Amino acid sequence: MKKLVAEFIGTFWLIVGGCGTAIFAASNPDMGIGKIGIAVAFGLSLVTMFYSIGHISGCHLNPAVTLGLATAGKFDPKNVPTYILAQVLGAITGAALVYLVMLGKVGYQIGSFAANGYEENSPEGYSIISAFITELVMTFIFLFIILGATYEKAHKAFSGLAIGLGLTLIHLVSMPITNTSINPARSLSQALFAEGNWALPQLWLFWVAPILGALLAGAFYQFLFNYDPIKSYKVSRKGQNPQLR
Amino acid sequence: MKKLVAEFIGTFWLIVGGCGTAIFAASNPDMGIGKIGIAVAFGLSLVTMFYSIGHISGCHLNPAVTLGLATAGKFDPKNVPTYILAQVLGAITGAALVYLVMLGKVGYQIGSFAANGYEENSPEGYSIISAFITELVMTFIFLFIILGATYEKAHKAFSGLAIGLGLTLIHLVSMPITNTSINPARSLSQALFAEGNWALPQLWLFWVAPILGALLAGAFYQFLFNYDPIKSYKVSRKGQNPQLR
Amino acid sequence: MKKLVAEFIGTFWLIVGGCGTAIFAASNPDMGIGKIGIAVAFGLSLVTMFYSIGHISGCHLNPAVTLGLATAGKFDPKNVPTYILAQVLGAITGAALVYLVMLGKVGYQIGSFAANGYEENSPEGYSIISAFITELVMTFIFLFIILGATYEKAHKAFSGLAIGLGLTLIHLVSMPITNTSINPARSLSQALFAEGNWALPQLWLFWVAPILGALLAGAFYQFLFNYDPIKSYKVSRKGQNPQLR
Amino acid sequence: MKKLVAEFIGTFWLIVGGCGTAIFAASNPDMGIGKIGIAVAFGLSLVTMFYSIGHISGCHLNPAVTLGLATAGKFDPKNVPTYILAQVLGAITGAALVYLVMLGKVGYQIGSFAANGYEENSPEGYSIISAFITELVMTFIFLFIILGATYEKAHKAFSGLAIGLGLTLIHLVSMPITNTSINPARSLSQALFAEGNWALPQLWLFWVAPILGALLAGAFYQFLFNYDPIKSYKVSRKGQNPQLR
Repeated sequence: MKKLVAEFIGTFWLIVGGCGTAIFAASNPDMGIGKIGIAVAFGLSLVTMFYSIGHISGCHLNPAVTLGLATAGKFDPKNVPTYILAQVLGAITGAALVYLVMLGKVGYQIGSFAANGYEENSPEGYSIISAFITELVMTFIFLFIILGATYEKAHKAFSGLAIGLGLTLIHLVSMPITNTSINPARSLSQALFAEGNWALPQLWLFWVAPILGALLAGAFYQFLFNYDPIKSYKVSRKGQNPQLR
Repeated sequence: MKKLVAEFIGTFWLIVGGCGTAIFAASNPDMGIGKIGIAVAFGLSLVTMFYSIGHISGCHLNPAVTLGLATAGKFDPKNVPTYILAQVLGAITGAALVYLVMLGKVGYQIGSFAANGYEENSPEGYSIISAFITELVMTFIFLFIILGATYEKAHKAFSGLAIGLGLTLIHLVSMPITNTSINPARSLSQALFAEGNWALPQLWLFWVAPILGALLAGAFYQFLFNYDPIKSYKVSRKGQNPQLR
Repeated sequence: MKKLVAEFIGTFWLIVGGCGTAIFAASNPDMGIGKIGIAVAFGLSLVTMFYSIGHISGCHLNPAVTLGLATAGKFDPKNVPTYILAQVLGAITGAALVYLVMLGKVGYQIGSFAANGYEENSPEGYSIISAFITELVMTFIFLFIILGATYEKAHKAFSGLAIGLGLTLIHLVSMPITNTSINPARSLSQALFAEGNWALPQLWLFWVAPILGALLAGAFYQFLFNYDPIKSYKVSRKGQNPQLR
Repeated sequence: MKKLVAEFIGTFWLIVGGCGTAIFAASNPDMGIGKIGIAVAFGLSLVTMFYSIGHISGCHLNPAVTLGLATAGKFDPKNVPTYILAQVLGAITGAALVYLVMLGKVGYQIGSFAANGYEENSPEGYSIISAFITELVMTFIFLFIILGATYEKAHKAFSGLAIGLGLTLIHLVSMPITNTSINPARSLSQALFAEGNWALPQLWLFWVAPILGALLAGAFYQFLFNYDPIKSYKVSRKGQNPQLR
């Protein structure tokens, strides 16, 4: 239960910290926060949570991460549904809080919130194919970083920095293409509030591509290192790898 | 006494480093420091002090942090008043130094200094309700990060980075709403020097909302982890958790 | 083999993360990612990979680094060719992926991709001599940082941060001069896709100058510390310095 | 001798990395590196060198730091002159390299290089008094951070990050006032190349104020913690505090 509360609060903060910065920056362009500020904000949302709840829940904050880690034998598959539920609820609660604060500004416009999209809803007009490839490859590398940085021989204490700053980098690369998701819970939470009836119909891509990328990364990592999934899972149950439990 | 000197110098530096950057950046917009520079400056003020006085005083630099940690049983309640006094005096001294340097520029204007405000004094016109919610939630999460990152199973050596970069993130999110306080001493120090007679009347919100958020976080963390406040306090007295003494 | 896969993926990511950010930023200037975003992206590409594959392959991702480390007696010379091959293939694959995503934007222009150049192809018109000196000195210092930060008495766990952030710094200094290479594989991968028939003829400089700088740094470091190259190499074979194997 | 070579190279890099970024950014404003890029560059120059030569020479790179540490009993006074000589020579060599690269651009203008100044040569017209106070206080705090972050109970491995990022913060605060020195060797190296015959006559302030601030910090720290300077010095000679030897 403690783990689910941690995932809820962590995903709440990822949306308030990351999407909140994006939404307030877009509503108030004279502040000059801009895309670099948004990329940094998403990364720091993850860094701050890794060091404060990583020892509790592993700090997934993302259904694709949870599924990728389960595929790599680093997370107990039977906990996947409750983790994803906690993440989705946390994300929606975070989006609702940002919405509530936005209501306090005269003449506010919700617009596209921080939703993800492709074709005419890509920030710079990239095609559905470019969007799919980008989300899939970015999530593949994200999981590769997570699995590598928490591997037993790695400097595991630095994994929170490497993974969080990796999320900043992924935003720097891919914000022009899809507004960057790699996280189904993040995309869902924004699509629910976005205006214009385009975000929900495009939501499928931001579930399918990230999850596919994560599953491929999990399987690839296991193959590369000849993981014994059963052994790895047992190790993880004994608490020897709390970062990714 | 050494602890109070450390809190005084640390809060002095938080104001000179954070508010000073904000004030000089606003007075000299052609420098291009901007809001990202200000958000980074606040975060680095805290990072630099955590690693240099964290082992002395715990590096609170903020009455809300001191009260939140006391609520969570991580700080001896009887030291709260002297800590807050040292923080307030350090903050005012820092503001006075920035004011003094400003006097050396021909045609200088104090304007709003780096004061916090709501409604017409919010940087982007957010309502009192949006301001209150934002300050409360941001301080709640700030304390949640502090309590989590210094928890015994966490990578405690990284807590200074996580907490300081958390302050940068909180600024990226909430500068448009309230100019970001989450720190009663910071708000007071700026309200004393700001022109226009609006900052002191609005100061109450930047004491009440941050402190309320911090108290809620302290109580929540204790509830979540079934802390025994008396035991925690004893542990802290024995110096086993110097980061947060 | 595992090491070569790691070098392939790492160099792929360096190109997608670093050059990809540069190319998408240049194609979509209204995003405001800019040169600071690009410098940060290159650095974070290296940081993320150091902490996830440093324990596998040493995370060179750069033929000049591989040659410099071999010169300093920190890498087995007989593995140099396969490492360089893996890096070059990874870089070209990364460039191809960025090219593929670019095709999905109507009216896309490849332009100079993220190629490196001098004289009229220097971003700000610097001469061939300035370009050669800059690439040589920057690679010399880059290897000096790598060799120093992974020296036995150093805080080796921080080497990934120091080296990655060093790459960010090198970009901040030298992007106006040559668009910053210090990496022959990076320059080759971009020259293959750049339009205008100028990048491949200028490619020689971005192999010669970085490699020369790296060899000088390797020899200098060995001289400064009276390294016994045979002993160092044996130590490295025993796996006592996995960061640089 | 090894230590002096390290101080020479380190200060060379501080000038090439920090002042070089400033000079190339000012010559090519369309690159958009700006003041934030410059502040980050100075900080990363120090971070990269701390982790690569901190274990050799202590990585002072600054006569004021060397004198402040000697005052605090953390550095052998008889090594002060050779350290300062190595720093000054390294800084001048770095400035000469940047000058050489600048010559390779048609129509280049040296202008004020990255020199420090006050009154009409302050970037934003601040008075001599504001400049003096700012340089003194910034150097005081810089030494306070150095002494605190390398204190025996501190997380010493993080001192390179705290001190380097502290230099970034000091630039964010004080670039509008004096263009930020806090380092006599840095100011000298730029004044030698700057055009207009104003930088050398103003150089005295950037030796006197930083050194005074550093001496005060060294004395204050010793007083605050009841240091026994003779004992501290002996400990340092035994190499128990290599970071600051």
